[in-house]
Amino acid sequence: MEKNEKIKDMERLQRQLDFILEADKEKNIFRQTYLADGQRKENDAEHCWHLALMALLLKEYSNEEVDLSRVIPMVLGHDLIEIDAGDTYAYDEEGAKTKQERERKAADRIYSLLPEEQGTWLRELWEEFEAYETPEAKFAHVLDNFQPLFLNDASDGRSWTEHQVKKSQIYKRNRRTAEGSETIWAYMETLIDKHIQLGHIQDDMSGDVRQDRR
Amino acid sequence: MEKNEKIKDMERLQRQLDFILEADKEKNIFRQTYLADGQRKENDAEHCWHLALMALLLKEYSNEEVDLSRVIPMVLGHDLIEIDAGDTYAYDEEGAKTKQERERKAADRIYSLLPEEQGTWLRELWEEFEAYETPEAKFAHVLDNFQPLFLNDASDGRSWTEHQVKKSQIYKRNRRTAEGSETIWAYMETLIDKHIQLGHIQDDMSGDVRQDRR
Repeated sequence: MEKNEKIKDMERLQRQLDFILEADKEKNIFRQTYLADGQRKENDAEHCWHLALMALLLKEYSNEEVDLSRVIPMVLGHDLIEIDAGDTYAYDEEGAKTKQERERKAADRIYSLLPEEQGTWLRELWEEFEAYETPEAKFAHVLDNFQPLFLNDASDGRSWTEHQVKKSQIYKRNRRTAEGSETIWAYMETLIDKHIQLGHIQDDMSGDVRQDRR
Repeated sequence: MEKNEKIKDMERLQRQLDFILEADKEKNIFRQTYLADGQRKENDAEHCWHLALMALLLKEYSNEEVDLSRVIPMVLGHDLIEIDAGDTYAYDEEGAKTKQERERKAADRIYSLLPEEQGTWLRELWEEFEAYETPEAKFAHVLDNFQPLFLNDASDGRSWTEHQVKKSQIYKRNRRTAEGSETIWAYMETLIDKHIQLGHIQDDMSGDVRQDRR
Protein backbone atom coordinates (compact mmCIF):
# COMPACT_ATOMS: atom_id res chain seq x y z
CA MET A 1 0.00 0.00 0.00
CA GLU A 2 1.29 3.46 -0.87
CA LYS A 3 1.97 5.42 2.29
CA ASN A 4 0.43 8.55 0.84
CA GLU A 5 -2.93 6.78 0.61
CA LYS A 6 -3.14 6.79 4.41
CA ILE A 7 -3.25 10.59 4.30
CA LYS A 8 -6.84 11.55 3.53
CA ASP A 9 -6.29 15.16 2.55
CA MET A 10 -2.70 15.59 1.41
CA GLU A 11 -3.28 19.10 0.07
CA ARG A 12 -4.49 20.32 3.47
CA LEU A 13 -1.57 18.72 5.31
CA GLN A 14 0.84 20.18 2.76
CA ARG A 15 -0.46 23.71 3.37
CA GLN A 16 -0.10 23.27 7.12
CA LEU A 17 3.45 22.00 6.66
CA ASP A 18 4.33 24.83 4.27
CA PHE A 19 3.32 27.26 6.99
CA ILE A 20 5.23 25.34 9.68
CA LEU A 21 8.31 25.40 7.44
CA GLU A 22 7.89 29.13 6.79
CA ALA A 23 7.59 29.72 10.55
CA ASP A 24 11.07 28.23 10.96
CA LYS A 25 12.43 31.54 9.65
CA GLU A 26 11.46 33.21 12.93
CA LYS A 27 14.54 31.54 14.39
CA ASN A 28 16.63 33.88 12.25
CA ILE A 29 14.83 37.12 13.14
CA PHE A 30 17.01 38.68 15.82
CA ARG A 31 15.82 41.23 18.34
CA GLN A 32 17.73 43.93 20.23
CA THR A 33 17.38 42.11 23.55
CA TYR A 34 20.30 40.04 24.85
CA LEU A 35 19.83 36.66 26.49
CA ALA A 36 20.10 36.74 30.29
CA ASP A 37 23.79 35.79 30.05
CA GLY A 38 24.44 38.82 27.80
CA GLN A 39 26.28 36.68 25.24
CA ARG A 40 24.12 37.12 22.19
CA LYS A 41 20.84 38.63 21.05
CA GLU A 42 17.59 36.71 21.24
CA ASN A 43 15.53 35.68 18.23
CA ASP A 44 11.76 35.81 17.77
CA ALA A 45 11.18 32.06 18.20
CA GLU A 46 12.98 32.04 21.55
CA HIS A 47 11.15 35.19 22.61
CA CYS A 48 7.74 33.69 21.76
CA TRP A 49 8.54 30.45 23.57
CA HIS A 50 9.51 32.44 26.66
CA LEU A 51 6.28 34.48 26.48
CA ALA A 52 4.15 31.34 26.25
CA LEU A 53 5.87 29.86 29.31
CA MET A 54 5.37 33.14 31.17
CA ALA A 55 1.69 33.22 30.17
CA LEU A 56 1.24 29.83 31.84
CA LEU A 57 3.00 30.89 35.04
CA LEU A 58 2.03 34.55 35.47
CA LYS A 59 -1.65 34.43 34.49
CA GLU A 60 -2.68 35.23 38.08
CA TYR A 61 -1.27 38.77 37.71
CA SER A 62 -3.56 39.75 34.85
CA ASN A 63 -5.95 42.45 36.09
CA GLU A 64 -8.81 40.69 34.33
CA GLU A 65 -9.50 36.97 33.88
CA VAL A 66 -7.85 35.77 30.67
CA ASP A 67 -8.43 32.69 28.52
CA LEU A 68 -5.06 31.00 28.00
CA SER A 69 -6.43 29.08 25.02
CA ARG A 70 -6.35 32.47 23.27
CA VAL A 71 -3.36 34.11 25.00
CA ILE A 72 -1.02 31.22 24.15
CA PRO A 73 -1.62 31.05 20.37
CA MET A 74 -1.60 34.86 20.39
CA VAL A 75 1.90 35.05 21.87
CA LEU A 76 3.19 32.03 19.92
CA GLY A 77 2.15 33.60 16.64
CA HIS A 78 2.34 37.36 17.18
CA ASP A 79 5.80 37.76 15.62
CA LEU A 80 5.26 35.66 12.47
CA ILE A 81 4.73 38.85 10.48
CA GLU A 82 8.35 39.78 11.26
CA ILE A 83 9.48 37.05 8.84
CA ASP A 84 8.70 39.58 6.12
CA ALA A 85 8.49 42.86 8.05
CA GLY A 86 11.58 42.35 10.22
CA ASP A 87 11.86 43.24 13.89
CA THR A 88 11.16 46.92 14.52
CA TYR A 89 13.13 47.89 17.61
CA ALA A 90 10.90 49.33 20.35
CA TYR A 91 12.60 52.72 20.21
CA ASP A 92 13.12 52.99 16.44
CA GLU A 93 11.00 56.04 15.49
CA GLU A 94 11.75 55.87 11.76
CA GLY A 95 10.85 52.18 11.59
CA ALA A 96 7.65 52.81 13.53
CA LYS A 97 6.30 55.00 10.69
CA THR A 98 6.16 52.14 8.19
CA LYS A 99 5.67 49.26 10.67
CA GLN A 100 1.89 48.96 10.29
CA GLU A 101 1.94 48.78 6.50
CA ARG A 102 4.90 46.37 6.39
CA GLU A 103 3.23 44.09 8.91
CA ARG A 104 -0.16 44.09 7.19
CA LYS A 105 1.41 42.97 3.93
CA ALA A 106 3.35 40.28 5.76
CA ALA A 107 0.17 39.00 7.39
CA ASP A 108 -1.57 38.82 3.98
CA ARG A 109 1.14 36.53 2.68
CA ILE A 110 2.04 34.43 5.70
CA TYR A 111 -1.37 33.56 7.12
CA SER A 112 -2.69 32.69 3.65
CA LEU A 113 -0.26 29.77 3.47
CA LEU A 114 -2.49 27.90 5.93
CA PRO A 115 -5.86 26.24 5.21
CA GLU A 116 -8.30 29.12 5.25
CA GLU A 117 -9.97 28.61 8.63
CA GLN A 118 -6.64 28.15 10.41
CA GLY A 119 -5.07 31.16 8.72
CA THR A 120 -8.06 33.32 9.59
CA TRP A 121 -8.02 32.14 13.20
CA LEU A 122 -4.32 32.96 13.70
CA ARG A 123 -4.58 36.24 11.82
CA GLU A 124 -7.55 37.35 13.90
CA LEU A 125 -5.58 36.61 17.06
CA TRP A 126 -2.73 38.75 15.73
CA GLU A 127 -5.17 41.55 14.88
CA GLU A 128 -6.70 41.22 18.35
CA PHE A 129 -3.22 41.56 19.83
CA GLU A 130 -2.54 44.66 17.76
CA ALA A 131 -5.95 46.22 18.61
CA TYR A 132 -4.99 46.04 22.32
CA GLU A 133 -8.56 45.95 23.58
CA THR A 134 -9.42 42.53 25.02
CA PRO A 135 -8.08 41.26 28.37
CA GLU A 136 -6.09 38.63 26.43
CA ALA A 137 -4.46 41.25 24.19
CA LYS A 138 -3.64 43.47 27.17
CA PHE A 139 -2.07 40.57 29.05
CA ALA A 140 -0.11 39.47 25.96
CA HIS A 141 1.27 43.03 25.72
CA VAL A 142 2.28 42.91 29.40
CA LEU A 143 4.34 39.79 28.65
CA ASP A 144 5.72 41.18 25.40
CA ASN A 145 6.93 44.32 27.22
CA PHE A 146 8.01 42.67 30.47
CA GLN A 147 10.11 39.87 28.97
CA PRO A 148 12.72 42.06 27.23
CA LEU A 149 12.88 44.38 30.26
CA PHE A 150 13.42 41.34 32.48
CA LEU A 151 16.23 40.10 30.20
CA ASN A 152 17.76 43.58 30.05
CA ASP A 153 17.85 43.54 33.84
CA ALA A 154 19.52 40.10 33.85
CA SER A 155 22.11 41.18 31.26
CA ASP A 156 23.18 44.32 33.19
CA GLY A 157 21.15 46.64 31.01
CA ARG A 158 23.35 45.94 27.99
CA SER A 159 20.72 46.70 25.36
CA TRP A 160 19.63 49.92 27.17
CA THR A 161 23.22 51.14 27.37
CA GLU A 162 23.94 50.32 23.72
CA HIS A 163 20.87 52.21 22.55
CA GLN A 164 21.17 55.02 25.16
CA VAL A 165 17.57 54.42 26.13
CA LYS A 166 15.73 57.11 28.08
CA LYS A 167 13.24 56.58 30.86
CA SER A 168 10.62 58.56 28.90
CA GLN A 169 10.93 56.08 25.99
CA ILE A 170 10.30 53.12 28.28
CA TYR A 171 7.35 54.87 29.92
CA LYS A 172 5.90 55.80 26.54
CA ARG A 173 6.13 52.23 25.31
CA ASN A 174 4.60 50.98 28.55
CA ARG A 175 1.92 53.62 28.93
CA ARG A 176 -0.77 50.92 28.88
CA THR A 177 1.07 48.03 30.57
CA ALA A 178 -0.68 48.66 33.91
CA GLU A 179 -4.04 48.13 32.17
CA GLY A 180 -3.01 44.52 31.72
CA SER A 181 -1.29 43.95 35.04
CA GLU A 182 -0.88 46.41 37.91
CA THR A 183 1.42 43.95 39.69
CA ILE A 184 3.81 43.30 36.84
CA TRP A 185 3.95 46.99 35.97
CA ALA A 186 4.81 47.77 39.61
CA TYR A 187 7.61 45.22 39.43
CA MET A 188 8.81 46.64 36.09
CA GLU A 189 8.99 50.10 37.67
CA THR A 190 11.32 48.76 40.37
CA LEU A 191 13.61 47.42 37.63
CA ILE A 192 13.53 50.71 35.72
CA ASP A 193 14.41 52.65 38.91
CA LYS A 194 17.24 50.22 39.62
CA HIS A 195 18.79 50.71 36.19
CA ILE A 196 18.44 54.48 36.38
CA GLN A 197 20.47 54.31 39.61
CA LEU A 198 23.00 52.10 37.82
CA GLY A 199 23.23 54.56 34.93
CA HIS A 200 21.96 52.06 32.32
CA ILE A 201 18.78 54.05 31.60
CA GLN A 202 18.98 57.82 31.11
CA ASP A 203 16.69 59.69 33.48
CA ASP A 204 15.05 62.40 31.39
CA MET A 205 12.01 62.59 33.71
CA SER A 206 13.75 63.52 36.95
CA GLY A 207 11.08 66.12 37.84
CA ASP A 208 8.44 63.38 37.85
CA VAL A 209 10.74 61.06 39.75
CA ARG A 210 11.29 63.58 42.53
CA GLN A 211 7.53 64.07 42.77
CA ASP A 212 7.02 60.29 43.02
CA ARG A 213 9.37 60.08 45.96
CA ARG A 214 8.01 62.89 48.14
CA MET B 1 4.24 54.97 47.86
CA GLU B 2 6.87 52.25 47.47
CA LYS B 3 6.29 50.34 44.27
CA ASN B 4 6.99 47.05 45.97
CA GLU B 5 3.96 47.55 48.20
CA LYS B 6 1.71 47.07 45.18
CA ILE B 7 2.99 43.50 44.91
CA LYS B 8 1.02 41.44 47.41
CA ASP B 9 3.22 38.36 47.53
CA MET B 10 6.73 39.33 46.45
CA GLU B 11 8.23 36.00 47.50
CA ARG B 12 5.86 34.08 45.22
CA LEU B 13 6.51 36.38 42.26
CA GLN B 14 10.26 36.14 42.89
CA ARG B 15 10.14 32.33 42.71
CA GLN B 16 8.21 32.46 39.45
CA LEU B 17 10.72 34.91 38.01
CA ASP B 18 13.69 32.84 39.21
CA PHE B 19 12.26 29.94 37.24
CA ILE B 20 11.57 32.09 34.17
CA LEU B 21 15.17 33.34 34.34
CA GLU B 22 16.50 29.79 34.70
CA ALA B 23 14.40 28.73 31.68
CA ASP B 24 16.30 31.29 29.59
CA LYS B 25 19.21 28.81 29.57
CA GLU B 26 17.23 26.56 27.21
CA LYS B 27 18.19 29.03 24.47
CA ASN B 28 21.77 27.80 24.84
CA ILE B 29 21.03 24.06 24.75
CA PHE B 30 21.75 23.08 21.17
CA ARG B 31 20.34 20.02 19.47
CA GLN B 32 21.68 17.95 16.56
CA THR B 33 18.96 19.16 14.19
CA TYR B 34 19.75 21.96 11.74
CA LEU B 35 17.32 24.77 11.00
CA ALA B 36 15.46 24.37 7.70
CA ASP B 37 18.06 26.57 5.96
CA GLY B 38 20.84 24.22 7.14
CA GLN B 39 22.93 27.12 8.48
CA ARG B 40 23.11 26.29 12.16
CA LYS B 41 21.76 23.87 14.74
CA GLU B 42 18.53 24.51 16.57
CA ASN B 43 18.25 25.10 20.31
CA ASP B 44 15.70 23.72 22.76
CA ALA B 45 13.73 26.97 23.13
CA GLU B 46 13.25 27.25 19.37
CA HIS B 47 12.35 23.56 19.15
CA CYS B 48 9.72 23.87 21.89
CA TRP B 49 8.20 26.97 20.29
CA HIS B 50 7.93 25.11 17.01
CA LEU B 51 6.28 22.11 18.71
CA ALA B 52 3.70 24.33 20.41
CA LEU B 53 2.82 25.97 17.09
CA MET B 54 2.55 22.53 15.48
CA ALA B 55 0.31 21.30 18.32
CA LEU B 56 -2.12 24.12 17.55
CA LEU B 57 -2.18 23.39 13.81
CA LEU B 58 -1.87 19.60 13.60
CA LYS B 59 -4.17 18.54 16.45
CA GLU B 60 -6.65 17.06 13.95
CA TYR B 61 -4.16 14.30 13.10
CA SER B 62 -3.99 12.89 16.62
CA ASN B 63 -5.53 9.42 16.63
CA GLU B 64 -7.36 10.26 19.84
CA GLU B 65 -8.92 13.53 20.98
CA VAL B 66 -6.32 15.58 22.87
CA ASP B 67 -6.64 18.47 25.30
CA LEU B 68 -4.37 21.27 24.06
CA SER B 69 -4.43 22.90 27.49
CA ARG B 70 -2.23 19.97 28.53
CA VAL B 71 -0.36 19.29 25.27
CA ILE B 72 0.88 22.89 25.01
CA PRO B 73 2.46 23.23 28.47
CA MET B 74 3.78 19.69 28.04
CA VAL B 75 5.68 20.57 24.87
CA LEU B 76 6.70 24.04 26.10
CA GLY B 77 8.26 22.56 29.23
CA HIS B 78 9.41 19.09 28.26
CA ASP B 79 13.04 20.07 27.60
CA LEU B 80 13.61 22.18 30.73
CA ILE B 81 15.42 19.25 32.33
CA GLU B 82 18.06 19.55 29.58
CA ILE B 83 19.30 22.75 31.26
CA ASP B 84 21.09 20.42 33.67
CA ALA B 85 20.99 17.08 31.84
CA GLY B 86 21.97 18.38 28.39
CA ASP B 87 20.48 17.24 25.10
CA THR B 88 20.87 13.51 24.58
CA TYR B 89 20.99 12.95 20.83
CA ALA B 90 18.29 10.56 19.65
CA TYR B 91 20.84 8.00 18.44
CA ASP B 92 23.41 8.33 21.27
CA GLU B 93 23.37 4.86 22.87
CA GLU B 94 25.94 5.69 25.57
CA GLY B 95 24.06 8.83 26.61
CA ALA B 96 20.79 6.91 26.70
CA LYS B 97 22.10 4.71 29.56
CA THR B 98 22.36 7.60 32.02
CA LYS B 99 19.64 9.82 30.53
CA GLN B 100 16.87 8.87 32.94
CA GLU B 101 18.92 9.46 36.08
CA ARG B 102 20.39 12.74 34.82
CA GLU B 103 16.96 14.01 33.88
CA ARG B 104 15.32 13.02 37.18
CA LYS B 105 17.93 14.97 39.14
CA ALA B 106 17.47 17.94 36.84
CA ALA B 107 13.70 17.86 37.38
CA ASP B 108 14.21 17.80 41.17
CA ARG B 109 16.18 21.02 41.02
CA ILE B 110 14.49 22.94 38.25
CA TYR B 111 10.81 22.42 39.04
CA SER B 112 11.41 23.15 42.74
CA LEU B 113 12.36 26.73 41.86
CA LEU B 114 8.65 27.43 41.26
CA PRO B 115 5.92 27.88 43.88
CA GLU B 116 5.04 24.36 44.87
CA GLU B 117 1.73 23.90 43.04
CA GLN B 118 3.11 25.29 39.79
CA GLY B 119 6.28 23.21 40.01
CA THR B 120 4.27 20.06 40.71
CA TRP B 121 1.92 20.78 37.82
CA LEU B 122 4.73 21.24 35.28
CA ARG B 123 6.71 18.31 36.63
CA GLU B 124 3.70 16.02 36.41
CA LEU B 125 3.19 17.04 32.80
CA TRP B 126 6.83 16.18 32.10
CA GLU B 127 6.42 12.81 33.83
CA GLU B 128 3.23 12.21 31.85
CA PHE B 129 5.18 12.94 28.66
CA GLU B 130 7.91 10.50 29.68
CA ALA B 131 5.39 7.80 30.68
CA TYR B 132 4.01 7.87 27.10
CA GLU B 133 0.56 6.60 28.03
CA THR B 134 -2.06 9.33 27.69
CA PRO B 135 -3.33 10.62 24.31
CA GLU B 136 -1.66 13.97 25.11
CA ALA B 137 1.72 12.35 25.79
CA LYS B 138 1.46 10.25 22.62
CA PHE B 139 0.64 13.29 20.52
CA ALA B 140 3.44 15.32 22.12
CA HIS B 141 5.85 12.51 21.17
CA VAL B 142 4.55 12.56 17.58
CA LEU B 143 5.44 16.26 17.39
CA ASP B 144 8.77 15.78 19.18
CA ASN B 145 9.76 13.09 16.67
CA PHE B 146 8.23 14.65 13.57
CA GLN B 147 9.67 18.16 13.96
CA PRO B 148 13.38 17.19 13.72
CA LEU B 149 12.64 14.77 10.87
CA PHE B 150 10.77 17.55 9.07
CA LEU B 151 13.73 19.93 9.55
CA ASN B 152 16.17 17.22 8.45
CA ASP B 153 14.15 16.87 5.27
CA ALA B 154 14.23 20.65 4.71
CA SER B 155 17.99 20.83 5.31
CA ASP B 156 18.81 18.07 2.79
CA GLY B 157 19.29 15.44 5.48
CA ARG B 158 22.38 17.18 6.83
CA SER B 159 22.09 15.85 10.38
CA TRP B 160 21.39 12.28 9.13
CA THR B 161 24.40 12.36 6.86
CA GLU B 162 26.70 13.77 9.57
CA HIS B 163 25.66 11.07 12.03
CA GLN B 164 25.43 8.29 9.41
CA VAL B 165 21.95 7.48 10.64
CA LYS B 166 20.42 4.13 9.75
CA LYS B 167 16.81 3.45 8.88
CA SER B 168 16.59 0.94 11.74
CA GLN B 169 17.56 3.66 14.23
CA ILE B 170 14.80 5.94 12.99
CA TYR B 171 12.26 3.11 13.08
CA LYS B 172 13.33 2.11 16.57
CA ARG B 173 12.96 5.66 17.86
CA ASN B 174 9.57 5.93 16.14
CA ARG B 175 8.24 2.50 17.03
CA ARG B 176 5.29 4.11 18.83
CA THR B 177 4.76 7.24 16.72
CA ALA B 178 1.81 5.68 14.85
CA GLU B 179 0.04 5.20 18.20
CA GLY B 180 -0.18 9.00 18.41
CA SER B 181 -0.91 9.74 14.76
CA GLU B 182 -1.32 7.28 11.88
CA THR B 183 -1.41 10.17 9.43
CA ILE B 184 1.75 11.92 10.55
CA TRP B 185 3.61 8.63 10.78
CA ALA B 186 2.53 7.80 7.21
CA TYR B 187 3.89 11.17 6.10
CA MET B 188 7.11 10.60 8.05
CA GLU B 189 7.59 7.28 6.27
CA THR B 190 7.42 9.03 2.90
CA LEU B 191 10.19 11.38 4.06
CA ILE B 192 12.31 8.49 5.33
CA ASP B 193 11.90 6.65 2.00
CA LYS B 194 12.83 9.81 0.10
CA HIS B 195 16.06 10.26 2.05
CA ILE B 196 16.98 6.61 1.68
CA GLN B 197 16.68 7.12 -2.09
CA LEU B 198 18.83 10.25 -1.77
CA GLY B 199 21.45 8.34 0.24
CA HIS B 200 21.06 10.52 3.37
CA ILE B 201 19.73 7.66 5.48
CA GLN B 202 21.45 4.27 5.38
CA ASP B 203 19.06 1.48 4.48
CA ASP B 204 19.90 -1.40 6.83
CA MET B 205 16.38 -2.88 6.57
CA SER B 206 16.25 -3.53 2.83
CA GLY B 207 14.63 -6.94 3.31
CA ASP B 208 11.72 -5.32 5.08
CA VAL B 209 11.55 -2.56 2.54
CA ARG B 210 11.25 -5.04 -0.35
CA GLN B 211 8.48 -6.81 1.55
CA ASP B 212 6.65 -3.51 2.05
CA ARG B 213 6.64 -2.82 -1.65
CA ARG B 214 5.38 -6.14 -2.92
